[in-house]
Amino acid sequence: MRRVVELRWDPILGEWVAVSNIREERPWRPSGCPFCPGSPETGSGWSVVVLENRFPMLVPEPPEPTSRRWPFIAVPGRGRCLVIVETPEHSLDDLSDLGVDGVLRVLERVRSALWFRNKGEEVGVSLTHPHSQLYAMPVIPSKVLREMRSCYRYWLEKRRCLLCEVRDAELREGTRIVYRSTDFVAYVPFWARWPFEVHIHPLKHVQSVRGMDRGTLESLAECLTKVLCGLKNLFEKPMPYVMALHEPPLRGEYPWYHTHIEVYGMYRVSGRLKYAAGAELGGGVFTYDSTPERAAEMLRRCIESRC
Amino acid sequence: MRRVVELRWDPILGEWVAVSNIREERPWRPSGCPFCPGSPETGSGWSVVVLENRFPMLVPEPPEPTSRRWPFIAVPGRGRCLVIVETPEHSLDDLSDLGVDGVLRVLERVRSALWFRNKGEEVGVSLTHPHSQLYAMPVIPSKVLREMRSCYRYWLEKRRCLLCEVRDAELREGTRIVYRSTDFVAYVPFWARWPFEVHIHPLKHVQSVRGMDRGTLESLAECLTKVLCGLKNLFEKPMPYVMALHEPPLRGEYPWYHTHIEVYGMYRVSGRLKYAAGAELGGGVFTYDSTPERAAEMLRRCIESRC
Repeated sequence: MRRVVELRWDPILGEWVAVSNIREERPWRPSGCPFCPGSPETGSGWSVVVLENRFPMLVPEPPEPTSRRWPFIAVPGRGRCLVIVETPEHSLDDLSDLGVDGVLRVLERVRSALWFRNKGEEVGVSLTHPHSQLYAMPVIPSKVLREMRSCYRYWLEKRRCLLCEVRDAELREGTRIVYRSTDFVAYVPFWARWPFEVHIHPLKHVQSVRGMDRGTLESLAECLTKVLCGLKNLFEKPMPYVMALHEPPLRGEYPWYHTHIEVYGMYRVSGRLKYAAGAELGGGVFTYDSTPERAAEMLRRCIESRC
Repeated sequence: MRRVVELRWDPILGEWVAVSNIREERPWRPSGCPFCPGSPETGSGWSVVVLENRFPMLVPEPPEPTSRRWPFIAVPGRGRCLVIVETPEHSLDDLSDLGVDGVLRVLERVRSALWFRNKGEEVGVSLTHPHSQLYAMPVIPSKVLREMRSCYRYWLEKRRCLLCEVRDAELREGTRIVYRSTDFVAYVPFWARWPFEVHIHPLKHVQSVRGMDRGTLESLAECLTKVLCGLKNLFEKPMPYVMALHEPPLRGEYPWYHTHIEVYGMYRVSGRLKYAAGAELGGGVFTYDSTPERAAEMLRRCIESRC
């Protein structure tokens, strides 16, 4: 079978799609944890370790793309897919159980484009040992790109960062704030799509996590720990979530865009799983079955009383 | 509790999000099927029936929006949410089991903006009696809007419909075609996001399903039936899917955009469920764990031999 590792351009939705048939062979819940200390890949004597993903979407030496002719344009899937194993302890439930110091150790390993984390079998997690992932990509991730476009247009007109403007409006309004640390604020946005969607923004315009000093990174670790702890304790069962760090590209100055983390808690206020289906995936219309204000209040109270 | 039924504008991603706390009360798998003949809502003596959704995202008389001040802009959630009960037979597995005539009867009921259908508990379907849904919205669904923008830009430059151009390129290439009826073609796009993503396009530029004569609609019913039948028979278990009709707005002429149906089959070539998680939801980067060419070949063969 021909090896295919490429990014295909969808000119209709204006997005890159990553295609890799290396991943056809990905095992589902292999016997024996490949992340535990002493396994062939991890060795021992570490508190956090970064590994290559064995079934990557992107590779350092990709093959020629299958097509370069319009409208079927693909570029080589050049890049790296890394796994951050966040703790030697296999049975730890979640990142927040590591405490602020442990979360800080993970954040210090985040060095490139897209850092994301999936939690819970409801979002398809096959290896339960706490880990997150890094994708270093030759293109800007579509969601970040769309944000950047809006922010750049806003900057051209107003000379202000749109993300800072929205964060400040959330701070003034106050009803959707769930937590504040020295340098960061976490809130459920007015236009939240997922039931417990939380955005974590720096209180000042900070372009990237790479530029943060230790104190700032500690403050981010604290804010993230509180948010994840709140999500974990809201219902009887720890909440499944998806988390992603939105960073601008490695090179360049972006006075009109700043780094932030988005966490999507998937249980609705009733405690049942929210599915993205026809309206969301087919129409692009997210349906929010309560109000972001109510979700924010529930989460804020949970953080106050249980974290 | 204050009733909230509104569309909130996300100025960062440029999308409307539907918010309705009416839906907090939606029951999960109620006892007794509300769609079967003889139930209070449906009565009897029908082969297809259209009902109001009892827990709608949009209502004819919405309350005042909670905010209209930038950056928190909401508009009233004015519209209707309808359910098309597609057959009196509760235990029918899927639309394709109705045959072409039955599918045609359903298509004849599709009269407004967003028609969609969810199949399988894996995508959150709570009522198994075959049904699909219609959302009549005061805004263009985000995904359709994004398509329309690209198509309009292409038209300005080339005076041709981008969707027609892509369909013709798929027809020339041929490797991703899964079925052709007299007036329609179904293919897995070059940039498919979901494992068995199938797009059904008219062979000529036809703006809307509302303008189709009976012969054309019949040909659409045939093509759709074959595609869904193929998805159902690919693996041991019928495949969960999400389906949506992308129509331009009711009013206006769109020589640069035409109606089409998108179906997203959720099992990967290995037969396991594909989840959208960190890369997809957090980064907007869909990861395709095989190739669309391979998926198309599997589906085409299945339709040929089993439908």
